[in-house]
Amino acid sequence: MFVPASDCPVREVDRGITRQILAHDPHLMMVRVSFATGAVGYVHTHPHRQITYVASGRFDVSIGDARRVMVAGDSFYAMPDMPHGVTALEDSVLIDIFSPTREDFLAQAAGGPR
Amino acid sequence: MFVPASDCPVREVDRGITRQILAHDPHLMMVRVSFATGAVGYVHTHPHRQITYVASGRFDVSIGDARRVMVAGDSFYAMPDMPHGVTALEDSVLIDIFSPTREDFLAQAAGGPR
Repeated sequence: MFVPASDCPVREVDRGITRQILAHDPHLMMVRVSFATGAVGYVHTHPHRQITYVASGRFDVSIGDARRVMVAGDSFYAMPDMPHGVTALEDSVLIDIFSPTREDFLAQAAGGPR
Repeated sequence: MFVPASDCPVREVDRGITRQILAHDPHLMMVRVSFATGAVGYVHTHPHRQITYVASGRFDVSIGDARRVMVAGDSFYAMPDMPHGVTALEDSVLIDIFSPTREDFLAQAAGGPR
């Protein structure tokens, strides 16, 4: 299945943060998340396993009790239910992968509560 | 788990194609694949489901009987055992996601046969 970016709506999900749901099926979801400088993806948990790729820019990333600055080309992994969060140190983009798919994101995209 | 790119060896896997295994666990694997102009990822199949993000450049992508040019920001999805392949139309980079992980890639990285 081809998923051109032009077919994927960009949704503002928090201050300075937009989300674009890319290719996905019930088992796997790819999401592009853009951050303005200083935008904060607050520490949170979810039962989905997650791998994230830093597509551009620079983030302060926390996973559990650890913190590290990650730059374009770096990646990180968060096990299910592992607390994780990011702060953008400049205008930056992440590619998030979730397994299984984030049904909550699909519900939000369909117009439900955030 | 933090996976800085500098910790991830880059391996030449075919003419004009290099592979860098990024964050992964047994269920999920992220791989960065760089293509020189004209390099061909021949049509192939595998039982792993796959989502791919075009990080930069431009590809002619085939999935099953369909073909389409995909550019940076686009993504595509290949179901398990669905034939798929790419030809790089310029120097380009893909981020491939596999579920489950590509044990064959890990074996190759450990020095086994391609």
